[in-house]
Amino acid sequence: MTNARIEVLGIGNAIVDVIARAEDDFLVRQGMNKGAMALIDEERAEHIYEAMGPAVEVSGGSAANTIVGIASLGGRAAFIGKVRDDALGGVFAHDIRAIGVRFETPPAFEGASTGRCYVLVTPDGERTLNTYLGAAQDLHPNDIDSEAVAGAAITYLEGYLWDPKNAKDAFLKAATVAHDSHRHVALSLSDAFCVDRWREEFLELIRTHTVDILFANESELHSLYQTSDFDTAAAALRKEAQLAVVTRGEKGCVIVSRDKVTEVAASPVERVVDTTGAGDLFAAGFLFGLARGLDHAICGKLGGLAAAEVIQHIGARPEVGLKALAQENGLLA
Amino acid sequence: MTNARIEVLGIGNAIVDVIARAEDDFLVRQGMNKGAMALIDEERAEHIYEAMGPAVEVSGGSAANTIVGIASLGGRAAFIGKVRDDALGGVFAHDIRAIGVRFETPPAFEGASTGRCYVLVTPDGERTLNTYLGAAQDLHPNDIDSEAVAGAAITYLEGYLWDPKNAKDAFLKAATVAHDSHRHVALSLSDAFCVDRWREEFLELIRTHTVDILFANESELHSLYQTSDFDTAAAALRKEAQLAVVTRGEKGCVIVSRDKVTEVAASPVERVVDTTGAGDLFAAGFLFGLARGLDHAICGKLGGLAAAEVIQHIGARPEVGLKALAQENGLLA
Repeated sequence: MTNARIEVLGIGNAIVDVIARAEDDFLVRQGMNKGAMALIDEERAEHIYEAMGPAVEVSGGSAANTIVGIASLGGRAAFIGKVRDDALGGVFAHDIRAIGVRFETPPAFEGASTGRCYVLVTPDGERTLNTYLGAAQDLHPNDIDSEAVAGAAITYLEGYLWDPKNAKDAFLKAATVAHDSHRHVALSLSDAFCVDRWREEFLELIRTHTVDILFANESELHSLYQTSDFDTAAAALRKEAQLAVVTRGEKGCVIVSRDKVTEVAASPVERVVDTTGAGDLFAAGFLFGLARGLDHAICGKLGGLAAAEVIQHIGARPEVGLKALAQENGLLA
Repeated sequence: MTNARIEVLGIGNAIVDVIARAEDDFLVRQGMNKGAMALIDEERAEHIYEAMGPAVEVSGGSAANTIVGIASLGGRAAFIGKVRDDALGGVFAHDIRAIGVRFETPPAFEGASTGRCYVLVTPDGERTLNTYLGAAQDLHPNDIDSEAVAGAAITYLEGYLWDPKNAKDAFLKAATVAHDSHRHVALSLSDAFCVDRWREEFLELIRTHTVDILFANESELHSLYQTSDFDTAAAALRKEAQLAVVTRGEKGCVIVSRDKVTEVAASPVERVVDTTGAGDLFAAGFLFGLARGLDHAICGKLGGLAAAEVIQHIGARPEVGLKALAQENGLLA
């Protein structure tokens, strides 16, 4: 795959995170489901913002975080997603380009403002997400740069794309273009509630091999197969998916394909500060390794290392260069 | 002073920080003076932003950071400063109010956008500031809420206010109102280059007792008296200032008044991540102690503790509640 112009191209909701610390009872008072992502409208967004504490603004978005991780590892990366031509849209575009990601989706010049995610980080490091999609709603099949997709070794899509009305068509267009060019398509299931909203369609994507590589955490996997038993879900996954990676937090990850199951331990973490981006950065490490043709176990370790970096500080994007970190840990030459 | 409605009221440039890591040679290439604050125009702001790496946005502004520190210590605090009615102005207003600071200055509805400071943090933790004042330029004497100033035990002004054209008059109006109500006026010298721009006027403020309490770091003090000898500068300061505090980084601080000189050691710091806000938070701890009638040595320790917290993470505002931190360290009951 190393001859492709772009190694990983991500398509996702372009979002700026607004991150604040919060106590658990704040989540309870606000009726928030701890650890989950809730879609909110503008009025609710304003209400939450008014109620929450002092915040920091950091570019986010699930697939966008992953793509930034790819670039930080030294990979050739591109992103497609929709912002508005406003201040936060400028922040999003600056941050993703500044790390070397190709980002050429034109911003919207009218309509809703750039999408925001209100991230509440509780003292245990868990994050609870409230997303106002805003301009991300306006991602359209026309925004899919077919040439870029056709040239990318892997096109990576977030399950959250199933929420905005036109993004689903954009998703399917990208998958078709990728497969027509004999490229791979990867999907993150994003969130257990997202799986709950789109279970049948996600299963269909897997069963029809519209998706070649699947990322899920335990709760997303359980939601997908509606079972609380991990082994049952993993067995079902193995039958249906070409290649799937299930992340299990501090228990590491399980990589499942038809012919083998590989377990990889998690990277050591001194102190969990903010779990935002853990899954996104795991996917970054794994996909980077895959695009470079590395062994699945090494891919899993790269994922674990990137995830470990991002959960030890506030924000869902790496604070240090992941390439150097991977080299220090003997995972890259 | 504890009966005053407001303990410390700050007046300063309302700024949002845009913080990125940078190598020393980036500063050299950009012609930046390491560790200093440079005033920049909009064109230069755009140029720097384009050249710098991925950033985080955090509310800042020197006096505003101090006032947030006062509130975090449990003090009654207010702030006067000018933002535009734009996205970053909303961020600034949210963040300062969310921690309990009274902030009622109406935003500008036209003119320049909310002020921004591009903060480049080098690997040694030193920060280099590039400030686009924007709407902060429009702080006007009419924005000074005389009732609030008259009711505040201490009015705290930043030297940076001498840069925007109308802010100087706002500063002098506030000082007059404060003294007419038998309150105290404090000034931070802000930056050695700021002192260089306004040396004679700052000396005049001290000599005429327009300012009762002065904050300076070593380089500002040296710039004020145009000497590289600390003892010479400190002796001059002692003759002219009513009460002055000179911060000396890891060497702690020296508190100077006519009748005594008190030295206070710095708080231990595990790892310096970003020195942005060190002076601002020192002033917060000191002024909070002073407003509560505490001994100068305790005031210095509170300042050192608050400064130590803020330099151990990215951003110039405390990440943990300073009141609890001061209690844990036996400085507050």
